[in-house]
Amino acid sequence: LMQEKIDLFRAEFLELHPYDQARIFEEQEKNVRLLIYSYLAPQEMAEVMEQVDSDRVVDIIGEMLPEFAAKVLEEMAIDDAVDILNDLDDKNMVASFLTVMSKDASEQIKKLLHYEEKTAGSIMTTEYVVIREDMTVKEAMKHLRKEAPGAETIYYLYVVNVDKKLVGVISLRDLIIAEGDFLIKEVMSERVVSVPAGEDQEEVAQMMRDYDFLALPVVDFQEHLLGIITVDDIMDVMEEEASDDYSKLAGFSDVEKLNDTAIASAKKRLPWLIILLFLGMFTASIIGRFEETLDQVAILAVFIPLIAGMAGNTGTQALAVAVRNLSASSSNEKINTKRIIWEEAKTGVITGTCCGILITLIVAFWYKDIYLGGLVGISIMATLVVATIAGAFVPLVMHRLKIDPAVASGPFITTLNDIISILIYFSLATTFMGLLTN
Amino acid sequence: LMQEKIDLFRAEFLELHPYDQARIFEEQEKNVRLLIYSYLAPQEMAEVMEQVDSDRVVDIIGEMLPEFAAKVLEEMAIDDAVDILNDLDDKNMVASFLTVMSKDASEQIKKLLHYEEKTAGSIMTTEYVVIREDMTVKEAMKHLRKEAPGAETIYYLYVVNVDKKLVGVISLRDLIIAEGDFLIKEVMSERVVSVPAGEDQEEVAQMMRDYDFLALPVVDFQEHLLGIITVDDIMDVMEEEASDDYSKLAGFSDVEKLNDTAIASAKKRLPWLIILLFLGMFTASIIGRFEETLDQVAILAVFIPLIAGMAGNTGTQALAVAVRNLSASSSNEKINTKRIIWEEAKTGVITGTCCGILITLIVAFWYKDIYLGGLVGISIMATLVVATIAGAFVPLVMHRLKIDPAVASGPFITTLNDIISILIYFSLATTFMGLLTN
Repeated sequence: LMQEKIDLFRAEFLELHPYDQARIFEEQEKNVRLLIYSYLAPQEMAEVMEQVDSDRVVDIIGEMLPEFAAKVLEEMAIDDAVDILNDLDDKNMVASFLTVMSKDASEQIKKLLHYEEKTAGSIMTTEYVVIREDMTVKEAMKHLRKEAPGAETIYYLYVVNVDKKLVGVISLRDLIIAEGDFLIKEVMSERVVSVPAGEDQEEVAQMMRDYDFLALPVVDFQEHLLGIITVDDIMDVMEEEASDDYSKLAGFSDVEKLNDTAIASAKKRLPWLIILLFLGMFTASIIGRFEETLDQVAILAVFIPLIAGMAGNTGTQALAVAVRNLSASSSNEKINTKRIIWEEAKTGVITGTCCGILITLIVAFWYKDIYLGGLVGISIMATLVVATIAGAFVPLVMHRLKIDPAVASGPFITTLNDIISILIYFSLATTFMGLLTN
Repeated sequence: LMQEKIDLFRAEFLELHPYDQARIFEEQEKNVRLLIYSYLAPQEMAEVMEQVDSDRVVDIIGEMLPEFAAKVLEEMAIDDAVDILNDLDDKNMVASFLTVMSKDASEQIKKLLHYEEKTAGSIMTTEYVVIREDMTVKEAMKHLRKEAPGAETIYYLYVVNVDKKLVGVISLRDLIIAEGDFLIKEVMSERVVSVPAGEDQEEVAQMMRDYDFLALPVVDFQEHLLGIITVDDIMDVMEEEASDDYSKLAGFSDVEKLNDTAIASAKKRLPWLIILLFLGMFTASIIGRFEETLDQVAILAVFIPLIAGMAGNTGTQALAVAVRNLSASSSNEKINTKRIIWEEAKTGVITGTCCGILITLIVAFWYKDIYLGGLVGISIMATLVVATIAGAFVPLVMHRLKIDPAVASGPFITTLNDIISILIYFSLATTFMGLLTN
């Protein structure tokens, strides 16, 4: 691909979309990457870096000469550069990059480095076009032409008054259609929706999706415009949050990648597995207490996985519904906890009754023992009711306590419901022992 | 809120963003909604309808007078109108709406009704601005001003040649910056990325997210431009697909809503629960075969939920990683099945060895029986290895067979692994029975 033919490489590589450039770049060996740095201008490399996988971006910045890296960061979209600097563990390196950069760039970056992760402030950019309400349409268009090359989006223009407070918005579409001599304040929309810098990024994503915005302004407590969030960043947030919820339901705290090594994967999974191992030992110790019952009616053991499994499955269903709907409802909607629990209880009674009757019939015929059938059936019924309620109750309580309900992952609910189901099953079995040993 | 004060209602209601209008509208009783139809013009109602929850939109269209409904559909964004018509079960109603509409609108809609659900064709819109390559920048801007009000987005302009084939794209940003006398073909980018109409919507979403597009053109096999897909529709697709994957992992085929009744919820969950019940009976029958072993060493039953639970949890983890990464990798990336399985096997060996040793020690001390400890430990180890591989193997095979791997939901893998783990455990126990009964 490369050898010494710089011109040929540049001609072919720069023809590609930055996303494809990044894919090719990532596939190269380290020594080839080092060559690429010397072939590309900082600005060209910046476009590639914006598309490099976020897991590798920190390593790659570390490979570059510090001065080149600083220039690349300066040329990148400011929000992407800030993400990288936030991910760098070596804070001396961050400081040295900032000193090499132009004063203007380093000051803008410093401002953005303040914001907490996963807030509106942390994903916003300061590269946007702002116009004043007393400009005419013509002046605004002229201003726009000048500012457009450096801005991340120009399709929504935010309007401020003399105090730099956000007072309106006009889309480029409306600006183009408007007559040249009108004042911006006459043609802009005053229905401007904004978010405070501390807003959670998931809420911001929800809002942009609901309102079909391409950009959303971020303001401080005095309604001063601080920056804007663009839809491409929101798509990444949505993907990230969905992966996050999904991973938690499956039972790990950290999202895994296909290219993780086995040891890295094992490290992420082991903590959960060990916690579950101890919870499982607790379940085992409960069964241990009923050893006497088991000794007398060994057949009881046969149905343990069936009952525990059904409890786990129904609990996970209820959990998923609750978590999904909690994260889909915006924060200003009230969650009617009582009503949800009540509906889940009814759902549990219906599913429990159906499954209970079915299993009673199957076991009664199979083992020719109506009492055993009844025991298993009633256990399944009671288990399903309790497990369904537990599956919905745990995330709702967490939501109330302002804990992310997705933390109540599937395996946790499953194990909790294992314990509940086994308690129900063996308690019933011990109580009605007389009937079973006939 | 309403009474007879039409003007006041209109003044206040129309001030709101359509998303908020829709929320208010949905909360009203049916008779209030009927009043609203008479207060609003079809165009105003169309904006509300575009934001109404997709589950309710069909009922609401049914409430309107057919003629009003047809006008509202005509005024809506064409892709949204097509979605509604696709959801209507009563095909006579669809036909009657189409006859009432203007010929132009009904023909455009008919074209879009052809496309299969969840393809690029089904989510695209035909309301876009197209320019010819031989226009000058000035002519293009004039054309744009004229067409802008009816278009869904004007921020990317697609360029066609005399044969109506897609040959380029220019962003409005670049158009505004360009000099007026240049020809479009001199300033446009020829690096235009398009998708065929039959492309899966998930692939389209992935592409828009990767390339940070605000719109993507859809073409037929001869590269003729058919329509465009805008980013707001893609955000809905992303949300839908994420909900879908999540629901499947939790074990149901249909996404549930918080406002579903208990009976509706139960209906969606019962099919899965009953399948799992039968799978659970199968597990039970396997344990039944080892009844003799159980009769002799009742304590074995104590560890059934622990071993089955661990198998289920580790399998779900492996499953989630595989499904998530399969759906995140675009179709042109090759999935190296062997490598993934091999990595998962190694992960399984590491986690299995750690958990196995831990549980051996715990059980050996607790029950003062080194053989029992060893049996449970070795079972856990073997189970974790097999369950991890199974968790990754099943979705990968499904992917190969072109079945959506997310169908291999959590409960299915869990139950499969229950069976495997119990077979391993009891086979080992029966083999080494001599040591346990000492």
